[in-house]
Amino acid sequence: MNIAVLGTGIVGQTVGKKLVALGHAVSMGSRDAAHPNAVAWVAAAGSGARYGTFANAARFGEIIFNCTAGVASLDALASAGEANLAEKVLVDVSNPLAFEKGKAPRVIVEAESVGERIQRALPRTRVVKALNTMNCNVMVDPARVASGEHDLLLAGDDASAKRAVEALLGTFGWHRFIDLGGIAAARAMEAYVELWIRLRLTLETSDFQIAVVR
Amino acid sequence: MNIAVLGTGIVGQTVGKKLVALGHAVSMGSRDAAHPNAVAWVAAAGSGARYGTFANAARFGEIIFNCTAGVASLDALASAGEANLAEKVLVDVSNPLAFEKGKAPRVIVEAESVGERIQRALPRTRVVKALNTMNCNVMVDPARVASGEHDLLLAGDDASAKRAVEALLGTFGWHRFIDLGGIAAARAMEAYVELWIRLRLTLETSDFQIAVVR
Repeated sequence: MNIAVLGTGIVGQTVGKKLVALGHAVSMGSRDAAHPNAVAWVAAAGSGARYGTFANAARFGEIIFNCTAGVASLDALASAGEANLAEKVLVDVSNPLAFEKGKAPRVIVEAESVGERIQRALPRTRVVKALNTMNCNVMVDPARVASGEHDLLLAGDDASAKRAVEALLGTFGWHRFIDLGGIAAARAMEAYVELWIRLRLTLETSDFQIAVVR
Repeated sequence: MNIAVLGTGIVGQTVGKKLVALGHAVSMGSRDAAHPNAVAWVAAAGSGARYGTFANAARFGEIIFNCTAGVASLDALASAGEANLAEKVLVDVSNPLAFEKGKAPRVIVEAESVGERIQRALPRTRVVKALNTMNCNVMVDPARVASGEHDLLLAGDDASAKRAVEALLGTFGWHRFIDLGGIAAARAMEAYVELWIRLRLTLETSDFQIAVVR
């Protein structure tokens, strides 16, 4: 498949690398036509990798991963272009984090989540919130959390888009999915990250996840 | 032990009943000197149970469970009286929920959590955030979640208070504790409840919990 990864940070690099390794053609999009991170990533990721602007990448991708910072995602997606994203599945991996020197990052939890805002801004795009609830190394390799089974949460208004995301993430090794319902549940998935940050500090590792036990 | 349970709702009733069953003397406090819920609870809970105002109960308790609604907790604790709560361990079970007709409840996640506000308002009280991340039936009977082990989260500035809470909750059946650090982590525990609400809707049961898997 042709896949777009928007964002050149560690999340975009890690997800993009995995997709290339699985045989997909991946375009990494950024604000710049040739962001240094994207250039370096293409050199390392291999022949299925390319880079360009947000719009270039969005036009290229049949499915889009939003790996930009949550506080910048709406601008990035506006730059990617509504028409380039229309009818496509957009996996929103972003989190709206606030950073303050000397403190742990905080999640900005407002009445409307980033996932909901993206869906409202792009009504023709099929937004699925997923993967934002864990470290990027766990996203692409769930078996990295070695001691037991755990759950991937997802939310979105379009059921077929969620099934498509589950199928793609199945190729990453995921097999336990909890579909939380419509995109309104993105607020819960973003709010949870506040707990993830505290668990990260307590456990002193990013290689953890949650399992829902009944 | 003499224990105060502030709040006459289902959470206070359930926690109070468990404490009486374990042999403690429990006073249920409310805004009214004889709240109908408290009167009925005492009649059902047995000889270790009594009721009174927030101040009566707080004066009686060596340890205090705040089971009032999060949006009302600061008022309730002001009414209980700073002097009646000084030097005591206060287990803050509350969540700041907003209700809107026809919608799922939402957690109000602001810069400062209810747990932090309580600690700031009562600097001589040893506040421990705990138990707010699950249904009250699970609080008092962790084995109710039958399919596996799961974790109790807690946070607070006073380490010895947290150890005392762990010891008391051990008598409820709890044995896996994750100490998230200072009371600032209460924000994470309250934010998580937004995910709990969505999981509740998805799973169609309240008998679930999360396990942290590494």
